[in-house]
Amino acid sequence: MEPASGSRHAGPAARPAAAAVLPAGGSGERLGGATPKQFCTVHGRPLVSYTVRAMERISWISDIIVVVSPENIETMKTIIQKYGHKRVTVVKGGITRHRSIFNGLKVFAEDEFSKYLLQKPEVVVIHDAVRPFVEEDILLEVVMAAKEHGAAGAIRPLVSTVIASSADGCLDHSLERARYRASEMPQAFLFDIIYQAYQQCTDYDLDYGTECLHLALKYGKTKAKLIEGTADLWKVTYKRDLYAAESIIKDNLSQQVGVITDVKEDVVQVGLLLHESLKSQIQVEAISISLCQNESHLQNMFSGRCYNFIYIHDKQPAFQETHLLVDMLEKSNITLLYPVILISVHLNSSENISFSIGMEELTRNKKFAREVKKKNIWVYDLLIHYKDCLPLQEAVNSAAALIMALIKDRNPELIGQLLVA
Amino acid sequence: MEPASGSRHAGPAARPAAAAVLPAGGSGERLGGATPKQFCTVHGRPLVSYTVRAMERISWISDIIVVVSPENIETMKTIIQKYGHKRVTVVKGGITRHRSIFNGLKVFAEDEFSKYLLQKPEVVVIHDAVRPFVEEDILLEVVMAAKEHGAAGAIRPLVSTVIASSADGCLDHSLERARYRASEMPQAFLFDIIYQAYQQCTDYDLDYGTECLHLALKYGKTKAKLIEGTADLWKVTYKRDLYAAESIIKDNLSQQVGVITDVKEDVVQVGLLLHESLKSQIQVEAISISLCQNESHLQNMFSGRCYNFIYIHDKQPAFQETHLLVDMLEKSNITLLYPVILISVHLNSSENISFSIGMEELTRNKKFAREVKKKNIWVYDLLIHYKDCLPLQEAVNSAAALIMALIKDRNPELIGQLLVA
Ligand SMILES: [Mg+2]
Ligand SMILES: [Mg+2]
Repeated sequence: MEPASGSRHAGPAARPAAAAVLPAGGSGERLGGATPKQFCTVHGRPLVSYTVRAMERISWISDIIVVVSPENIETMKTIIQKYGHKRVTVVKGGITRHRSIFNGLKVFAEDEFSKYLLQKPEVVVIHDAVRPFVEEDILLEVVMAAKEHGAAGAIRPLVSTVIASSADGCLDHSLERARYRASEMPQAFLFDIIYQAYQQCTDYDLDYGTECLHLALKYGKTKAKLIEGTADLWKVTYKRDLYAAESIIKDNLSQQVGVITDVKEDVVQVGLLLHESLKSQIQVEAISISLCQNESHLQNMFSGRCYNFIYIHDKQPAFQETHLLVDMLEKSNITLLYPVILISVHLNSSENISFSIGMEELTRNKKFAREVKKKNIWVYDLLIHYKDCLPLQEAVNSAAALIMALIKDRNPELIGQLLVA
Repeated sequence: MEPASGSRHAGPAARPAAAAVLPAGGSGERLGGATPKQFCTVHGRPLVSYTVRAMERISWISDIIVVVSPENIETMKTIIQKYGHKRVTVVKGGITRHRSIFNGLKVFAEDEFSKYLLQKPEVVVIHDAVRPFVEEDILLEVVMAAKEHGAAGAIRPLVSTVIASSADGCLDHSLERARYRASEMPQAFLFDIIYQAYQQCTDYDLDYGTECLHLALKYGKTKAKLIEGTADLWKVTYKRDLYAAESIIKDNLSQQVGVITDVKEDVVQVGLLLHESLKSQIQVEAISISLCQNESHLQNMFSGRCYNFIYIHDKQPAFQETHLLVDMLEKSNITLLYPVILISVHLNSSENISFSIGMEELTRNKKFAREVKKKNIWVYDLLIHYKDCLPLQEAVNSAAALIMALIKDRNPELIGQLLVA
């Protein structure tokens, strides 16, 4: 996951040359839904796109082969186009997992696929399309181990005891948990070893097997190196896993906020207080700027891994300025993969006891937000109204709580609403 | 989980007499946090309370023993008191899972615990405190199988291939996935079988074993009946599982909404339209009532499994009526386990183009909501403003979308805010 990546990056010298095959042909039976899980949307984007992105951002992975069932080829191509994925080739899968992976490998080795012009890699990574949170660290570790041992795969401790049942549905024996591991993904292989294993294996293997490490052992006489992976390698299998994936993605997206204030003294002061109040909960980057001036600082802010922005001003309406920000965000391209949140904070210190908000203004805010949502920018409005009788600090704390709620929930239905601190 | 329970219930004749032991002594290492996972809050309540409730609502489970580590005994007692749990006894755990379960069983069998006055059950259920979504169906199935076979346990298909590694950290062999199962919870035993097994087992078993079915086999010569369980038996193990649990609970809580309209013609009409617009997304129960009159219909509505209410009116403010609803909700006791959502929908058809919302009113709404939140009732305000130029249907659809967002997100930070449809 990009926004909160803590990966160590491979130095240029250590970088291997690898390709990746992502089997994405599963049928989603276990989810109990019609849509196979790799195509279920998570925070608005199909799960498979997250996994493709996890591979794509790694410079030493030259090609990414996504293997999908025939009926999903067009869907997959549309996803690649829509989210601007690069170096991806879509390949038609077989009727089982092993047959699909084999089809993915053939692209590098067989004449009939020469049209793809893909170079046979030294090492091939095999990774499930439904394990989106794979990090560069573990990929590198597995690939380097494959270079040395011929094959390698990530493993995890067993969560439950594994048992064997007898023919009458009773316990036969239980396995000693400490001696066994769950075989997970990613796995990696010297290309020739896994490809030759697939060429030799039987129809029974292709139809009923699932484990590539097993094929490398059986047909390639290669004992895979096992690498302890982290918990985030888990496979999205059930509906609850989609919930978990969405929460993790939202959590990752809500680690950082950019605070933009115009240069007026009042506004700058509130910006500082808000910064102070937010910084215990989220990483804050702040600038004070006149929006009509040089915007290079803002462009820097928009080119990082920040997907949340607050614009503090004392204008109402602030459509012109918000428009400017929206345009810059759009140009920055960060809206391609994730919705970007923009909270327009209106500062009002009117002493007028009968201060009120007009319905026309609210209607206009909503209409504006609906327009901008098409660009994958979600605009919310927040009013900080303070008077002598209500200390500013209290209003700012309340604003910070509302801002955090909007950033964490990332709810598209609430765009254009005006919240009051 | 109560709100969306689809359980078949056991007829009186079939009801077994059982007790339950819930080991809750785990240390939460795998979550990477300081709080053991059974005490982590999920939608505001500790996870263990959900599991206790899942047992408590089953009439044929006479006693529930929660086994916690010594430092958490007071915490656990406070939880039981706060959420009004019944038939629960807190017992001090040992340093391992098996020692804790053994301690839980001793309460029924040994003289030193006679102060608890608990009757030895025929069958004892053992269930993890971190598996909150267990349904009566599977508990009954496992208990009945234990009566017949002496022992029984829920199983699930393996999600990953299980492998054994050699001493050098390489693959030794992989298990044929179809032959093995994951041993899950609940498990159940004839009390004497499991208790005698624990009395006979070695220190090594008590210190390094985890599997009760294994003890029943080894020391009780009892082959447990294995019962295929549903996916919702899963164990909250990692942080992502807490996310998933919270989403499932919120999802279950947002299956049903009660719509209350006052008896004025305009309001009733909007109530009907809203009902129509909501019913494709959520189960709707609606009544039209004058709040000052007989409230028995309302009391019925408040005694079911509904945790979301909409009150539609044309008054502003409607504090008096909302207060009345809050009082009734409080008396109904449904607020004990889950926060209840109350959306006050103000209908305004003012043709006045300069219609506006006063800051004083907004401040009052927020203050009121903060007060009522102490009773575990979360109040949100929603304005439906329609004029000839904006068709009512469109406003109602927009209101329905906002209502669904509030009900599904269940965000405590947004209480007291006024949303505009
Ligand atoms: Mg177990
Ligand atoms: Mg596998």
